[in-house]
Amino acid sequence: MHPERTVKLAVIPGDGIGPEVIAEAVKVLDAVTAGSGIRFDRTTFSLGAARYLETGDTLTDADLSAIAEHDAILLGAVGGVPGDARLKNANIERGLLLKLRFALDHYVNLRPSKLYPGAPGPLADPGEIDFVVVREGTEGPYVGNGGSIRTGTAHEIANETSVNTAYGIERVVRYAFDLAERRRKKLTLVHKTNVLVHAGGMWQRIVNEVAGEHPDVAVDYLHVDAATIFLVTNPSRFDVIVTDNLFGDILTDLAGAVTGGIGLAASGNINPDGAFPSMFEPVHGSAPDIAGQQKADPTAAILSVSLLLDHLGLREEAERVTRAVEDDIQARDAASRPTAHIGDAIVARLQA
Amino acid sequence: MHPERTVKLAVIPGDGIGPEVIAEAVKVLDAVTAGSGIRFDRTTFSLGAARYLETGDTLTDADLSAIAEHDAILLGAVGGVPGDARLKNANIERGLLLKLRFALDHYVNLRPSKLYPGAPGPLADPGEIDFVVVREGTEGPYVGNGGSIRTGTAHEIANETSVNTAYGIERVVRYAFDLAERRRKKLTLVHKTNVLVHAGGMWQRIVNEVAGEHPDVAVDYLHVDAATIFLVTNPSRFDVIVTDNLFGDILTDLAGAVTGGIGLAASGNINPDGAFPSMFEPVHGSAPDIAGQQKADPTAAILSVSLLLDHLGLREEAERVTRAVEDDIQARDAASRPTAHIGDAIVARLQA
Ligand SMILES: CC(C)[C@H](C(=O)O)[C@@H](O)C(=O)O
Ligand SMILES: CC(C)[C@H](C(=O)O)[C@@H](O)C(=O)O
Repeated sequence: MHPERTVKLAVIPGDGIGPEVIAEAVKVLDAVTAGSGIRFDRTTFSLGAARYLETGDTLTDADLSAIAEHDAILLGAVGGVPGDARLKNANIERGLLLKLRFALDHYVNLRPSKLYPGAPGPLADPGEIDFVVVREGTEGPYVGNGGSIRTGTAHEIANETSVNTAYGIERVVRYAFDLAERRRKKLTLVHKTNVLVHAGGMWQRIVNEVAGEHPDVAVDYLHVDAATIFLVTNPSRFDVIVTDNLFGDILTDLAGAVTGGIGLAASGNINPDGAFPSMFEPVHGSAPDIAGQQKADPTAAILSVSLLLDHLGLREEAERVTRAVEDDIQARDAASRPTAHIGDAIVARLQA
Repeated sequence: MHPERTVKLAVIPGDGIGPEVIAEAVKVLDAVTAGSGIRFDRTTFSLGAARYLETGDTLTDADLSAIAEHDAILLGAVGGVPGDARLKNANIERGLLLKLRFALDHYVNLRPSKLYPGAPGPLADPGEIDFVVVREGTEGPYVGNGGSIRTGTAHEIANETSVNTAYGIERVVRYAFDLAERRRKKLTLVHKTNVLVHAGGMWQRIVNEVAGEHPDVAVDYLHVDAATIFLVTNPSRFDVIVTDNLFGDILTDLAGAVTGGIGLAASGNINPDGAFPSMFEPVHGSAPDIAGQQKADPTAAILSVSLLLDHLGLREEAERVTRAVEDDIQARDAASRPTAHIGDAIVARLQA
């Protein structure tokens, strides 16, 4: 039992398989907190490609301030059918997902990668895999500071500017070191310092500086290209990886693939200061090709609930969810189960 | 026999294992062209960390114009011992390798990935892997248009600008389509169009335009994060990948890893117009930790010789080198051989 507490949760099921996986995630959230004194007061927000096609809106100011009044956000997946001509001028990713991450100052994009016993994976000899990528979430090439001239002509020039600040890097680097202290005390900076000398040099400098305050954390550095090699040849070498927004995007999809697929990969978009609600979402997309068919694996969404619980300080509940998922994965056979069956099986384990 | 011809070849052995692998590559070049009518007139250039430490020079204008007078360049690897304080203010990669690629307008960075029978690899079930990455070589985030203010302080801002031109993209896209026509007629554009909307949008537009001239080439698109997933879960899906400078850097290291390691990965930095000499080099670096010990695998350098021969129009010789390498790989056992033994074994197969 915890002291009575109500958590205001914004739920954004989104498009494609989003609503299906979120239904299971919510089941699990309810089951693990039943009788605990914690009540989740949920508001569902209809956002994504479907909403855009109906109303022309992606994320209005009113949506944003309503969401910002919640304690946390659970998001399924957003994005319409690729190639849908009606979405040609929409950019749901930038206008919704990235807008939320930037507006709510989600400077830590937390992406754990763990190979659970029994999980399928492409590597012949994966060894133990258990690391966390701390991806910077509010800077780098993602800032949207690009543009083009003579657009659409043979003389077009398109620039994209990666913006990096000492303020932004220091706070995420500090978070990563704190996390490493609570884990196996190893931190790897990933960048491309030999090419992106200014941004890379600043990342390296700040990691060196903060490392001085953490003499017991072993620090190393890898270029992003070399990091992808180690992710498939020796993923056990990693504990905490800290990296920029774009490199983190790439590494975490690859990390998801080597730990049983993107159907298991959870993430948290975290504002550690608590000034804004943090947002939890599976790493996968909306997969419109399999939507509505109960084919999606809700595990990534359910593990995102575990990250949400942990963020709210409900450590024990978070661990119970992770354990139930772990047991479910270990018990899997080749037969595929409908989305809801996977959710039900995990709920049953929580209640057992 | 070919008509008598002298090819002026600039050789840059470089640092670390560079000289060792280049010695074997040159052996193979001599063996395969012996009695063919083709004579290689070689000039060796001492460039790299060693030269910098001796003279303070990375690549002088005199070096550059001497190199530019050759018909082709063979490069081993450059770069000193990581963390060497005397190299703190040198950036051998930018000042030498990238300077050559940019000054000699190597706009096609050609990187074949093939899983040879018998080659070791990390994937449990790799399937057939045989694709080529056509990496743009003179634009994107590699242009060096970055800078910082308040450098070294808590208020530092560091920007890096990716510069992309329709001129630069169109020429490399055309090269990639021509290559696809000669292969399995499948081309995949890799970018991050949902985030880098200006650069990504231009890549997508130009690929669509050039695709119109190649109705028999099947074209698809992947975000770079998704592409890394497919490289480990279904690499057989790829034939020709065309992509920007940074994404190509990342994908080709990963591709090297899944096809038996970076010790086998060759590359060509090509100026298809012939205005400048093209440069052939293994994808791997100088590996100073194993230098001078005959531990390096010269295969990547030797396969780079095959790309060089192909570029010079010596198709048959190029194929003979590839076949000899393929046979050597297939005959390998777990025992490791000194660098020179691998070169000698490949030469022996050429002479058999
Ligand atoms: C949808 C896209 C904008 C997003 C990103 O690039 O961050 C996704 O790939 C992710 O990793 O969450
Ligand atoms: C050494 C470095 C500058 C280079 C690059 O990033 O292009 C290397 O990684 C490569 O792929 O040839």
